[in-house]
Amino acid sequence: MSGKALYVLNGPNLNLLGQRESAIYGEATLQDLETRCRAHAATLGLEIVFHQSNSEGELIGWVHEARDKASGIAINAGAYTHTSVALHDALRAVNLPSVEVHLSNVYKREAFRHTSFIAPVVNGVICGFGVDSYVLAISALSALISANKKG
Amino acid sequence: MSGKALYVLNGPNLNLLGQRESAIYGEATLQDLETRCRAHAATLGLEIVFHQSNSEGELIGWVHEARDKASGIAINAGAYTHTSVALHDALRAVNLPSVEVHLSNVYKREAFRHTSFIAPVVNGVICGFGVDSYVLAISALSALISANKKG
Amino acid sequence: MSGKALYVLNGPNLNLLGQRESAIYGEATLQDLETRCRAHAATLGLEIVFHQSNSEGELIGWVHEARDKASGIAINAGAYTHTSVALHDALRAVNLPSVEVHLSNVYKREAFRHTSFIAPVVNGVICGFGVDSYVLAISALSALISANKKG
Amino acid sequence: MSGKALYVLNGPNLNLLGQRESAIYGEATLQDLETRCRAHAATLGLEIVFHQSNSEGELIGWVHEARDKASGIAINAGAYTHTSVALHDALRAVNLPSVEVHLSNVYKREAFRHTSFIAPVVNGVICGFGVDSYVLAISALSALISANKKG
Amino acid sequence: MSGKALYVLNGPNLNLLGQRESAIYGEATLQDLETRCRAHAATLGLEIVFHQSNSEGELIGWVHEARDKASGIAINAGAYTHTSVALHDALRAVNLPSVEVHLSNVYKREAFRHTSFIAPVVNGVICGFGVDSYVLAISALSALISANKKG
Amino acid sequence: MSGKALYVLNGPNLNLLGQRESAIYGEATLQDLETRCRAHAATLGLEIVFHQSNSEGELIGWVHEARDKASGIAINAGAYTHTSVALHDALRAVNLPSVEVHLSNVYKREAFRHTSFIAPVVNGVICGFGVDSYVLAISALSALISANKKG
Amino acid sequence: MSGKALYVLNGPNLNLLGQRESAIYGEATLQDLETRCRAHAATLGLEIVFHQSNSEGELIGWVHEARDKASGIAINAGAYTHTSVALHDALRAVNLPSVEVHLSNVYKREAFRHTSFIAPVVNGVICGFGVDSYVLAISALSALISANKKG
Amino acid sequence: MSGKALYVLNGPNLNLLGQRESAIYGEATLQDLETRCRAHAATLGLEIVFHQSNSEGELIGWVHEARDKASGIAINAGAYTHTSVALHDALRAVNLPSVEVHLSNVYKREAFRHTSFIAPVVNGVICGFGVDSYVLAISALSALISANKKG
Amino acid sequence: MSGKALYVLNGPNLNLLGQRESAIYGEATLQDLETRCRAHAATLGLEIVFHQSNSEGELIGWVHEARDKASGIAINAGAYTHTSVALHDALRAVNLPSVEVHLSNVYKREAFRHTSFIAPVVNGVICGFGVDSYVLAISALSALISANKKG
Amino acid sequence: MSGKALYVLNGPNLNLLGQRESAIYGEATLQDLETRCRAHAATLGLEIVFHQSNSEGELIGWVHEARDKASGIAINAGAYTHTSVALHDALRAVNLPSVEVHLSNVYKREAFRHTSFIAPVVNGVICGFGVDSYVLAISALSALISANKKG
Amino acid sequence: MSGKALYVLNGPNLNLLGQRESAIYGEATLQDLETRCRAHAATLGLEIVFHQSNSEGELIGWVHEARDKASGIAINAGAYTHTSVALHDALRAVNLPSVEVHLSNVYKREAFRHTSFIAPVVNGVICGFGVDSYVLAISALSALISANKKG
Amino acid sequence: MSGKALYVLNGPNLNLLGQRESAIYGEATLQDLETRCRAHAATLGLEIVFHQSNSEGELIGWVHEARDKASGIAINAGAYTHTSVALHDALRAVNLPSVEVHLSNVYKREAFRHTSFIAPVVNGVICGFGVDSYVLAISALSALISANKKG
Repeated sequence: MSGKALYVLNGPNLNLLGQRESAIYGEATLQDLETRCRAHAATLGLEIVFHQSNSEGELIGWVHEARDKASGIAINAGAYTHTSVALHDALRAVNLPSVEVHLSNVYKREAFRHTSFIAPVVNGVICGFGVDSYVLAISALSALISANKKG
Repeated sequence: MSGKALYVLNGPNLNLLGQRESAIYGEATLQDLETRCRAHAATLGLEIVFHQSNSEGELIGWVHEARDKASGIAINAGAYTHTSVALHDALRAVNLPSVEVHLSNVYKREAFRHTSFIAPVVNGVICGFGVDSYVLAISALSALISANKKG
Repeated sequence: MSGKALYVLNGPNLNLLGQRESAIYGEATLQDLETRCRAHAATLGLEIVFHQSNSEGELIGWVHEARDKASGIAINAGAYTHTSVALHDALRAVNLPSVEVHLSNVYKREAFRHTSFIAPVVNGVICGFGVDSYVLAISALSALISANKKG
Repeated sequence: MSGKALYVLNGPNLNLLGQRESAIYGEATLQDLETRCRAHAATLGLEIVFHQSNSEGELIGWVHEARDKASGIAINAGAYTHTSVALHDALRAVNLPSVEVHLSNVYKREAFRHTSFIAPVVNGVICGFGVDSYVLAISALSALISANKKG
Repeated sequence: MSGKALYVLNGPNLNLLGQRESAIYGEATLQDLETRCRAHAATLGLEIVFHQSNSEGELIGWVHEARDKASGIAINAGAYTHTSVALHDALRAVNLPSVEVHLSNVYKREAFRHTSFIAPVVNGVICGFGVDSYVLAISALSALISANKKG
Repeated sequence: MSGKALYVLNGPNLNLLGQRESAIYGEATLQDLETRCRAHAATLGLEIVFHQSNSEGELIGWVHEARDKASGIAINAGAYTHTSVALHDALRAVNLPSVEVHLSNVYKREAFRHTSFIAPVVNGVICGFGVDSYVLAISALSALISANKKG
Repeated sequence: MSGKALYVLNGPNLNLLGQRESAIYGEATLQDLETRCRAHAATLGLEIVFHQSNSEGELIGWVHEARDKASGIAINAGAYTHTSVALHDALRAVNLPSVEVHLSNVYKREAFRHTSFIAPVVNGVICGFGVDSYVLAISALSALISANKKG
Repeated sequence: MSGKALYVLNGPNLNLLGQRESAIYGEATLQDLETRCRAHAATLGLEIVFHQSNSEGELIGWVHEARDKASGIAINAGAYTHTSVALHDALRAVNLPSVEVHLSNVYKREAFRHTSFIAPVVNGVICGFGVDSYVLAISALSALISANKKG
Repeated sequence: MSGKALYVLNGPNLNLLGQRESAIYGEATLQDLETRCRAHAATLGLEIVFHQSNSEGELIGWVHEARDKASGIAINAGAYTHTSVALHDALRAVNLPSVEVHLSNVYKREAFRHTSFIAPVVNGVICGFGVDSYVLAISALSALISANKKG
Repeated sequence: MSGKALYVLNGPNLNLLGQRESAIYGEATLQDLETRCRAHAATLGLEIVFHQSNSEGELIGWVHEARDKASGIAINAGAYTHTSVALHDALRAVNLPSVEVHLSNVYKREAFRHTSFIAPVVNGVICGFGVDSYVLAISALSALISANKKG
Repeated sequence: MSGKALYVLNGPNLNLLGQRESAIYGEATLQDLETRCRAHAATLGLEIVFHQSNSEGELIGWVHEARDKASGIAINAGAYTHTSVALHDALRAVNLPSVEVHLSNVYKREAFRHTSFIAPVVNGVICGFGVDSYVLAISALSALISANKKG
Repeated sequence: MSGKALYVLNGPNLNLLGQRESAIYGEATLQDLETRCRAHAATLGLEIVFHQSNSEGELIGWVHEARDKASGIAINAGAYTHTSVALHDALRAVNLPSVEVHLSNVYKREAFRHTSFIAPVVNGVICGFGVDSYVLAISALSALISANKKG
């Protein structure tokens, strides 16, 4: 297994987690989410680098940075999931074990949330389990890294 | 937590698992998959009822049966995922904690595999991790059952 | 008037009638529905053969059987209404007086319920009146049979 | 049951009934249709107010009038069924027990007759039974009024 | 040849002819147009009944009236060309020799003017020649009536 | 500034204002709306001609009439907004300062309310502010007239 | 008026005229059609150059040739009407008075015949009157040439 | 050449062959068809296993069975041709020489019969020759098997 | 009324206001616009916080900031109006009285400017009045704040 | 049986057969194909007229010529299959027993090769069997001619 | 570098260059264009074979001829760019270094000019620079040939 | 010729050039590309300002800056080509000689790369020649600047 960290990347509006629309997104804050991720990763012997940005360019930058520094990526690209060809290209270029994550079940929501530019360039998708989506994604990444598979 | 079993339901062609297209579906057989599911569920104190059928009607029947006998459903409806309004209706009627599972990342495949009639009537979706998709789904169901959430 | 029975055929998930989503489908069970149909048919001097199946193939079989044994068909194909070219072909081949029936007003529901493969091959459509949809359909069939019209 | 009349409203070209395209619409005239409706309503203890207009605005006016004067509406909006958002709005605003009626089975005809702006704002739809469509609609309205349901 | 008149029917906004957008519609007024039609028809031994209305219902009424009183119909339904299923039904029911006419070449204009509900239920279409479109249509109707062809 | 009045035109079903669906349209009646418009216009030194009709043809007539008699038009075409090419043509022909108004935010409603045949032929659009939409539209027209801009 | 001839151009399969599908195209042969065109043009003091080809390239060549030699073009491009951007470009480049002609009413036929690449680059369209379509087109061209209008 | 049999599989409603719509499907019964296939195969030194089912699941089962027992598959999936992703997956997994067969020319029929989920996963398609379609398919399979090509 | 300021947010390219395409956007600069907004707000007793950015992420940040610091938002998201699901989510999360504003009438421009991700999550839309669009939006917000309505 | 020859017509690029993309089209040259066709036809007592052209017009000409000189047509229209309404019209006019042929299985290739203007106007389609597609087509034509069926 | 010539192929209507629509295509004639190409090629040590045709078949023929005689192809297929699957197939078969060229920027023109059947089977595309598009294409081909890349 | 520099702008992920997917993008790094551009520009007497950013806003800023500082723009907007209305607006506003550049032939790739918001607002497009695309673009800009044409 690689000794590098997992990158857990969060897209636009996730900084408001726990402060808005709790019926959809739950009551945990972004800080709570980060804490939960670190704790779960620790049980698997993994470290977490955890980021959030409202800027598409900054998210792309972290994906690029992950090429050298990470063993895998869990990305909740938020609204950029449905619009960003640029993040699609970044993830394809980086080619690490990777997982698309969503807190909510996007298929129960508006039609424009049913398409993803991220899904075709990651190993798999996990959505609909709230904070547990991230926990499951970290487990999935751990298994992928052990098996040495790229996205 | 409910003392009832988890239903793990598998749709058409999954009986050929491990015998066809291993580049897409891996080399584990359906029997291997069942064994893996039972083992993981046991670690969570859960029992598994495991079924496979090529018949849409039989799958609907097991979903109905789950209303009384199961605490949750993990369903890999295979090709019916993309065509079956009837399974959509069955899952909506049954209203148990439930997860859509796929071995492969359907978003890397033909466009007709990018739509799901299952996704809008389950709690969440997990795809792309091979047999691990099922393991993660069982973990997710366990958490959903503990939190007492319906699909 | 033909001395043969009316076939009243019910598709997937209708076995759950009265046990699920009563806001949409009402509180009558499938047994109640059958009783109501038989009673109304009796007032018109007609007998009823009443079936339900979750299997598309079995429904097709009953439509075929009706060719020799029935004077008319009332069919609530449930979800297969929107997806089954095979039932379309069966009804067209059988060519009896026939009516598409729905308990709910499908036009108030999801877009995928607004198309019907059944409607173009039956005499008419009745939907939205709950159990009364069936009662009206039996009346309509009785009139069609008297007038000797085919679907 | 309300003591108010049922409004039976007929849209464009229905004044030509019995005088054109009898293969599609049958040989009864509009006058015959009205007579048949009155007779059937009488057996149910109901009175009929019967109108026809080629004008969308006049039909809207009768729907508005029905708010105070009718216990239910049966409407065959003819060609306006497929184009009139304004009648949709009128029926939604009036919110009485209501039925969309057609003489012919519109689903056997041109594709532009397969969509309806009326269907989503009435209780149910009856089509394809010629003059009997109206008779069945009056029976349906009678039952809806007894059960006190709104469109 | 029938001794009945030709109906020349004009739809919405044609009352403004010559007063608006002369680059598209030319400088002749509706009165000029009527005069030109009468003069040309006279050379063919035909009389003209000439109407204009902004009301879809009134246009339908004149089409109906033409059944008994006219030997042919030239109709410029204006904007209703592109939206009126009701005029489609009226012309189909009336079944007289008939021509769709437009002053402008609608195919050079917005896409929503490229579809016509009138064209499939008339004998032919003439558009793009300004007032001459009407003159040509009257010639065409005269020939159709001589040859006794219905729309 | 022109000494002519502003035409405030209201389309189908707006006569029911305050009597239906107050969650969408508010509780003011059409009379209240007219009063509010007149009062606000007076503060700007403007008179109001205020009309409502369920008839597309009558609305077109008022738009034509406005050519000579009005200095601007505020039009809430109601359902005709989404279907009337004829009103589009009328407004384009008349070519006065003009505003499309809606009480509700049509973009929060059904998809068929998201297109407008009115918007491309007026100066601007104001929607979603209830009765205040009209007040704002009168202010906007006043400014347009001062600046002498055409729709 | 120009002293140059009118080009009457006929596209693929029109060489079979009168020998196939007379229900659609009538019984006149291409030779009959040419004779009829010449006779009518003579009454207007015009000469005709009459061509038919199954080759798109040859038709384009004649359109180009017309730039110097013709005063106007009547073109029945047959099936190329619906597919040839190249003829569209040729007619646009040549920029003579021009008319699209069809024997049959293409709007009563398959959907793929309802679009035209020719219509947007000619003055007008005449279809549905059999051989009379050509006669009317020659009259229309004569008027266009007199009025000196380009396509 | 393989010594295994050819599987000739027939989908829904083909049990009615010769009993319905003979204008489309001809007058031979399913039994006649089987006899004809066996006779032709015998001339090529091949045996036939011949099945028909109205059940999608049963057809999938026979395709799976063919993996071990057949040297090639001719499949007329009837209506499932146009809707069954599951049969698509089964044929792709089995990967034998295979041919899609239809009695009628599906391209002359409704648009929903112009798409096939079978065609992309078989070697070739033969349609429109009635019972001869099957005879040709058996010849084609014989040649494919000789050449050792997979679908 | 809240004592907090109104946020007036301007998206990409609005920094060029008055320097480009004055036929569409007018001749006022962004500074002029700000001055006009402040002056008008002052007459209503309101303060303005005025921002412009070409960065989607920065605009999202200001919307988030407005949750605590603003009583309402007027947003001209420029080109992001038509593409940004992320701004949609931000405005929905913040849930303040809010207005979408445009200088030009976007419905007179390219089709890709006719859809808005902003409109469904604000109270209303005002477009087409140049700088007056902002003035009207501030008036509208003032009224919304008084009435205490959220977007 | 007719004593006339079969026309075997080949469209654009088929002159390159055996010289390009042998993975798709095989290694036989056009000359080999012709030889194979003649040999097979001889076994059925039939002669072959064999043509290839890159010109749509020339292909149309051969179809026309076939009306008098051929007993049937096998046509591989190559790329024109997907674009040529003119060949569609030619084949419909000629109305001989006819078969659409392709060497490759076009349904495994780009989406624009999945539609055919030829298929609706021939008796049947055979594709995917390389040179054997032609052999099968000749057999099919022989049977059609014996049975005296037109395309 | 190959000693063979570059083929510069020009499609329909380009023979009119400099004689029509100079606002779009510039004032150089086809002869000027050829001269310019030859001069530029000479500076790179290359010879030019320069052709123009209005016939799709003739263009296909030149592409085929290029297989043996050319080292690269620059093709401005004119209107056939948007419609010709046959040229697509020809270029794919020939598989030489190749460039799609246009004088005008086709993306500023009608939507039907935004798709190209040529682009996916050449190395690259150059459009919008008038005669310089060809000069740049020759430079590009020269570099491709040096680098020995196929289209 | 202007003495100002050319702006060569590069969008998201181009910083990874030479480090990822060399089969698509080649092996030159962004630094190599810059060096190559500068060298080529020097031969034309031009200077280069060379930028890369993953941020849409930053790219817009450089386009704005170019208004004063540049004589022309070559822009490879990467993934933003297909999604950014904001860059479209920026380039339209700036209105300098400009070229869209791509290393790869985007028409050979996924369908979502076949549309460009950049192409309609630049002079021309060059794609598919790797680093040579930039060299050709600089040559093209040089010619445009000499000829003083705006995008």
